[in-house]
Amino acid sequence: MSYARQMLDTYPGNFGVDAAALAAAVDALSDCAQACTADVDADLSEENVAEMVRCIRLCLDCVNVCTATLGVTSRQADYDADVTKPLLQACVAICKSCADECARHAQHHEHCRVCEQACRRCEQACRELLDSLK
Amino acid sequence: MSYARQMLDTYPGNFGVDAAALAAAVDALSDCAQACTADVDADLSEENVAEMVRCIRLCLDCVNVCTATLGVTSRQADYDADVTKPLLQACVAICKSCADECARHAQHHEHCRVCEQACRRCEQACRELLDSLK
Amino acid sequence: MSYARQMLDTYPGNFGVDAAALAAAVDALSDCAQACTADVDADLSEENVAEMVRCIRLCLDCVNVCTATLGVTSRQADYDADVTKPLLQACVAICKSCADECARHAQHHEHCRVCEQACRRCEQACRELLDSLK
Amino acid sequence: MSYARQMLDTYPGNFGVDAAALAAAVDALSDCAQACTADVDADLSEENVAEMVRCIRLCLDCVNVCTATLGVTSRQADYDADVTKPLLQACVAICKSCADECARHAQHHEHCRVCEQACRRCEQACRELLDSLK
Repeated sequence: MSYARQMLDTYPGNFGVDAAALAAAVDALSDCAQACTADVDADLSEENVAEMVRCIRLCLDCVNVCTATLGVTSRQADYDADVTKPLLQACVAICKSCADECARHAQHHEHCRVCEQACRRCEQACRELLDSLK
Repeated sequence: MSYARQMLDTYPGNFGVDAAALAAAVDALSDCAQACTADVDADLSEENVAEMVRCIRLCLDCVNVCTATLGVTSRQADYDADVTKPLLQACVAICKSCADECARHAQHHEHCRVCEQACRRCEQACRELLDSLK
Repeated sequence: MSYARQMLDTYPGNFGVDAAALAAAVDALSDCAQACTADVDADLSEENVAEMVRCIRLCLDCVNVCTATLGVTSRQADYDADVTKPLLQACVAICKSCADECARHAQHHEHCRVCEQACRRCEQACRELLDSLK
Repeated sequence: MSYARQMLDTYPGNFGVDAAALAAAVDALSDCAQACTADVDADLSEENVAEMVRCIRLCLDCVNVCTATLGVTSRQADYDADVTKPLLQACVAICKSCADECARHAQHHEHCRVCEQACRRCEQACRELLDSLK
């Protein structure tokens, strides 16, 4: 069981969100932020770095938005829909853009294939958490 | 002139945003993230810490959302409205909530008064940047 | 296999660090940052929040230092010992302090027991990565 | 007066550090993290992006280390020398490396000149804070 799930299962308060959906999102956000950080570095090591510029920028945005979403969703008390919903929407959007761009390079760069998977999983997990909030 | 404005004035590419509004937002986001970090610590030093719990949580959310928004808006190329707009909306919402909660404590805790000012200024700057994107 | 390990295995450049030790550290840093974020929130939900203040502060420091170390070690090219070594030393120190403080509360607060485990594992993984750099 | 200084002046507890040195470091860390974030984006907009790869990597490390140091030093209670000192040492080292690399590009790229200044000021402020801790 992931630490995220264990932390939820030992939480002293109530929270109005499905624990499985929340733990899945937290784990996916954590993995996605790390994968995108590593992908930026891998892109910078490629000979055709000029072709990777868009990928690098999207990955950097993805790291920032996933990290913030990870923090806000990890503090499960007092969900404020006015904050959490647009934040999750921004996260779904950047994960999708980043995955689509990584997919364009996946055939030539294995690291982009792995990063695409992390982004798609995060996009899906955030979408499901967002749906469960409605 | 702030570093944020100098970095914008020496930017090699084009960006479709008003430089003054962008620099104001970047500076306000940076200040707000730091003020909220310091306010959490100040709240934790108060004797009535149990009454400061909501303030601490909102400040922690505010740090996360402001830091992400700072990163995304500092990369001024390739603004993606699907990411930037909801992110700025989340930022406006958390800055407002955090300022409102700090205002409740401002009379007794000077640090909450200062933090409230940083949050209000950031809320306003993000709102103006958001309007300029439309 | 974790995304961290997959990203390392598909990395286009060389890196002078043991891949297993690096992947273990990256995964442990990621888990520890999340567990500490969640533990702050859980501490804030306890009735005896005044007794948890030191735990909250150490967890907040631990999140910051682990997140930075995660970023720097995820960019595996061009390790600079003058940066990476003291950063890992700071990370070992805060993980140890945070684990020791969580241990004091572990009997009464299950979430502190889980957080302690995440911190101990991270302390150990960073120590091993640090040793492998010498 | 900066928000950092105002937050220090309204802090409810004691702290064993010189307030002027601490406020200067906090402001410099905040500026440096933002300037490096913006410089990465500016570097990515240059035609000779392949020559900027080392600059980009150092700026990314600098953002991570400055952000962590900003968080830890903003929580001024309970300074733990085993954490704060190596963290400040890592910060001094990365600010120096990043400034030196930016200096190599400063003649051709104005944004690197501005970023160099932010890094040098941060290196100096962290060095002075580190000295005041001894």
